[in-house]
Amino acid sequence: MNKLLDEINRPNDIKKIPKDRLPELASEIRDFIVDHVSRTGGHLASNLGTVELTMAIHLVCDLPKDKIVFDVGHQCYTHKILTGRKDGFDTLRRYKGMSGFPKRCESTCDVFDTGHSSTSISVALGLAKARDLSGRDEKIFALIGDGALSGGLAYEALNNAARLRSNMIIVLNDNQMSISKNVGGMSNYLGRIRTNKKYNDLKNNVKTNLAKLPNGRGVRVAGNIRSVKDTLKRMFIPGMLFEDMGLTYIGPIDGHDIGQMVEAFNNALRMNEPVIVHVCTRKGKGYRPAEKYPSRYHGVGAFNVSSGSSGKADHPETYSHVFGDELIKLADNDKRIVAVTAAMPGGTGLLDFQKAFPDRFFDVGIEEEHAITYSAGMAAGGLRPVVPVYSTFLQRAYDEIMSDVCLNNMPVVIGVDRSGIVGSDGETHQGIYDIAYLRHMPGLTVMAPKGARELREMLAFALTLDGPAAIKYPRGEAVTELDDHDQAIALGRSEILVRGSGIALIAVGSMVMTAYKAALILKNKGINVTVVNARFVSPIDTEMLDSLSESHKTIYTLEEGVIECGFGEEVDRYYSEDHDVKVHNFGFPDKFISHGSPEILLKNYGLDAGSIAMYILKAYTNP
Amino acid sequence: MNKLLDEINRPNDIKKIPKDRLPELASEIRDFIVDHVSRTGGHLASNLGTVELTMAIHLVCDLPKDKIVFDVGHQCYTHKILTGRKDGFDTLRRYKGMSGFPKRCESTCDVFDTGHSSTSISVALGLAKARDLSGRDEKIFALIGDGALSGGLAYEALNNAARLRSNMIIVLNDNQMSISKNVGGMSNYLGRIRTNKKYNDLKNNVKTNLAKLPNGRGVRVAGNIRSVKDTLKRMFIPGMLFEDMGLTYIGPIDGHDIGQMVEAFNNALRMNEPVIVHVCTRKGKGYRPAEKYPSRYHGVGAFNVSSGSSGKADHPETYSHVFGDELIKLADNDKRIVAVTAAMPGGTGLLDFQKAFPDRFFDVGIEEEHAITYSAGMAAGGLRPVVPVYSTFLQRAYDEIMSDVCLNNMPVVIGVDRSGIVGSDGETHQGIYDIAYLRHMPGLTVMAPKGARELREMLAFALTLDGPAAIKYPRGEAVTELDDHDQAIALGRSEILVRGSGIALIAVGSMVMTAYKAALILKNKGINVTVVNARFVSPIDTEMLDSLSESHKTIYTLEEGVIECGFGEEVDRYYSEDHDVKVHNFGFPDKFISHGSPEILLKNYGLDAGSIAMYILKAYTNP
Repeated sequence: MNKLLDEINRPNDIKKIPKDRLPELASEIRDFIVDHVSRTGGHLASNLGTVELTMAIHLVCDLPKDKIVFDVGHQCYTHKILTGRKDGFDTLRRYKGMSGFPKRCESTCDVFDTGHSSTSISVALGLAKARDLSGRDEKIFALIGDGALSGGLAYEALNNAARLRSNMIIVLNDNQMSISKNVGGMSNYLGRIRTNKKYNDLKNNVKTNLAKLPNGRGVRVAGNIRSVKDTLKRMFIPGMLFEDMGLTYIGPIDGHDIGQMVEAFNNALRMNEPVIVHVCTRKGKGYRPAEKYPSRYHGVGAFNVSSGSSGKADHPETYSHVFGDELIKLADNDKRIVAVTAAMPGGTGLLDFQKAFPDRFFDVGIEEEHAITYSAGMAAGGLRPVVPVYSTFLQRAYDEIMSDVCLNNMPVVIGVDRSGIVGSDGETHQGIYDIAYLRHMPGLTVMAPKGARELREMLAFALTLDGPAAIKYPRGEAVTELDDHDQAIALGRSEILVRGSGIALIAVGSMVMTAYKAALILKNKGINVTVVNARFVSPIDTEMLDSLSESHKTIYTLEEGVIECGFGEEVDRYYSEDHDVKVHNFGFPDKFISHGSPEILLKNYGLDAGSIAMYILKAYTNP
Repeated sequence: MNKLLDEINRPNDIKKIPKDRLPELASEIRDFIVDHVSRTGGHLASNLGTVELTMAIHLVCDLPKDKIVFDVGHQCYTHKILTGRKDGFDTLRRYKGMSGFPKRCESTCDVFDTGHSSTSISVALGLAKARDLSGRDEKIFALIGDGALSGGLAYEALNNAARLRSNMIIVLNDNQMSISKNVGGMSNYLGRIRTNKKYNDLKNNVKTNLAKLPNGRGVRVAGNIRSVKDTLKRMFIPGMLFEDMGLTYIGPIDGHDIGQMVEAFNNALRMNEPVIVHVCTRKGKGYRPAEKYPSRYHGVGAFNVSSGSSGKADHPETYSHVFGDELIKLADNDKRIVAVTAAMPGGTGLLDFQKAFPDRFFDVGIEEEHAITYSAGMAAGGLRPVVPVYSTFLQRAYDEIMSDVCLNNMPVVIGVDRSGIVGSDGETHQGIYDIAYLRHMPGLTVMAPKGARELREMLAFALTLDGPAAIKYPRGEAVTELDDHDQAIALGRSEILVRGSGIALIAVGSMVMTAYKAALILKNKGINVTVVNARFVSPIDTEMLDSLSESHKTIYTLEEGVIECGFGEEVDRYYSEDHDVKVHNFGFPDKFISHGSPEILLKNYGLDAGSIAMYILKAYTNP
């Protein structure tokens, strides 16, 4: 049987599908997504929720002339399908395969590479201003979720959209969820709009009647009504918060009704100003398990479509779980300990903490900056906040860590989760800059554990400090093989795992295991190298460096991060003035690292044990 | 004649002043501030605007038990006067003197050190939560300007304040100004509230009547009215935007009427939830020249009180002016060039650009993050945005530069103004981290000119690049002495100013002149050193490094920034593996640098020409 999806092979093909068959196409797209993601893994719930919404946008757009900016971007699968990239789904998020996010290198229909939250309105506003100044007339859409709208950057952009008044549509995709359930004042406000039937009935009548007027007239009439009855409107029309900020609001609209959305978009475009179209969607729509557990089906590995099960029997203990588990134990004995997350209670391993200490747990929404400064405030009030944030998202809070936490020397403990290569999410999510952006912060203790046990000990140690600390640890399963090496943590002191001579490897965090394995390979070749677990990135263990330089001629530093501004450079500096050793730094070069499995990527950049051993062997034999 | 101010010697002394004499005290405080700031320099307009407001807060507070969090903090002079620090004003902002910002080391009444914008609500919310969890009962005030409210972090905090519902007062100090005039949707909204007389009359009646009811009852009655007549209230009560977010709003109130404010604060405190008290003040209040030109009197040097004049006849050309001037020339020939500022049109030298190209100039308000992402969007649309931001404030946009500009390889040119020591604003404003946070960003070209002419050339060069660029330059007068050294700019190529042997100095930006002077001193001692103007921090000139290592045994790197993650470390790394040179890095240690003149501070850290020459001489004679 011919599928409608067979007709969709390049941008704008969707316009050839008869209107009455669009729901059928939506259904095929859903099946396609579920089928492919069940095999490759990927973002499921958010993509199932935005099938009709994306179709509606495509129906009013002429691509690639018109521009669609996705916020975060993990909801772009339907867009990829509608722009000729169906085939890419076979290699979704695989190394050299199709990205799970918008990528300009994949298609001219992808206007901006995204991955972090709350950027779309700013980008779209910039695109709109560029269009206006250039005298062009393309349509501009920003597609933002209600979760992302809680981020400060989105608010800053709304503030300016109101002033610049460029023609653009901000589609507020309201599914009441970030990865987990949304929180906060804006979220509650949207909730009140959604559930107020009186509002909706009146609004639908007014809007429908206005929309029936010939081209443009509806808009003018609406303008008159507004100027005359501004205060009355406050009583009946939702979205006044946005209108108060100077933005026209249309909604709420059923985000699974293509016709309604197309009509709203066309009306909004005629207004020739920034318009917020508030669209309500259901995360996971159309696939029962994802509708029921949208958080669980946010980002998934391969799974069985009929059962919804991932088929994995045992869940290895991740670093995030270890962190959360240890935090509960510590919090049991110290009432000052509180935990803060920026919309990642599950991902950062805090769900059990939340259950155990509901009053001492704070999910502030997608607001990394506030999470840090709020924690600094709590610390100023005598508490001991612990804030695990993904390494890449913590970049948002660089200034808050510097100015609010470090400058005030507040005892905030930052968990730098997902540090290092994260894999299939790619460039925008790799946690390879944390040492570079944290190491130079005055007074900040920066640690990295070699495995599960050390993470527990470092967390406990961090909470004994009088100032701020950051502990970085990778995504995924916690290493336990080296747990026997358990010298007590002391400030700025490293740990020697293997004593050799001539050559020393100083490794940070995840690279300690790699260095250990490399040393075994070298030992088999008859070369006995020293292996040091750095433990502290800041302050660095200068005693250890002095001692190493006495009995070693060559030092290798290993870190799962960029070399520029990395740990290795600090070692280089220490030895640069008056030590007679050569140093080589292993790490990532100064570029963005694409998606792919950590194993492949680390190997590609020569950062697996085999490559490192080979490099050292070569240098040893051909000095 | 005895002054009331003589009675104010320690916290809470203000409560001993009879109510009817408070305006007299306010007047004395104003005279005191004008008198002192006219001699020391400092922040004037913002402090004159908040005299009564600060007095009113102190009248309802018991210090240091209760907590007042200042946003930015440059409006804290009255607070310092009222907490026993009158004497400090003789040394205001001088080295080892009193800071112009809140400082915990100065007084237990300063609860948090601030300097950057939009943090106060987050900090206060943290303090409030810590209080609640600890069972204490102190009052918590956040004092935030309408300018700072446009920053995303403030919005994130409002979002959470609404949810956490802790008892706290957010005083919105609405003076319609940042350093320059405020802009954007929120600003317009506040303007509508201020000017709607109908709102105000009704509100005053309601509030006054409610306030007359015995303790607490007013609040309860207000609660009932709200639940019954929610929609009606929308028609008449301002601040619904905040109420929509779940925050109680009181205002607008005359910020120069102490009685009205005390009443409002007391009412707000009884509500036992986060309350926004909207207070309208006049920047510069009470000193005619500052009222008339609040931007000019935001931060001032010494001036003549009666004339208002600074007495300086000639204004030396600053780097900011050079930047703005060259930008106009370039924009004349390239229509794609647009300029963006985050509330600093004057400080960044863009006022003339604004006049010349009003349609191509954008002041987005205190929103560094949006400034950068908006620019990335404009670049994606074909424009060439140029965005000068103070180095310290650019920290706010770390992730936006990384993820929106660099990852998308957008040709955005960032002017890193006020790079290096800024002087009297101190810790929170020193621009000493920019190399550390910019150098590792993939694809970002980072430059620093040695003087005026080179800044012009670098700006022109940056605009020829296909990707992003940052140019860092200091506060103050542009160096012109080295303008004759004018080798054309080429990507990643340094410039040799002086050819010597044995010893080489590689200097970045402002330190090139210092290195040049140090070389002259050394020459007089018979030591001929090479002086290199690095020009490019990224990419670094490796050819030059190779060449230097052939004829030099010792290399010194000089930069006006932190050593950790600095330019010097990149040189260390380059030489660490297989070059036989010693390297020493001059720069700031890993700590916050206090206020004081740049001359004193640079000398203190051994970064003036004399100290550097002396260090090199000593190393040369005692190797």
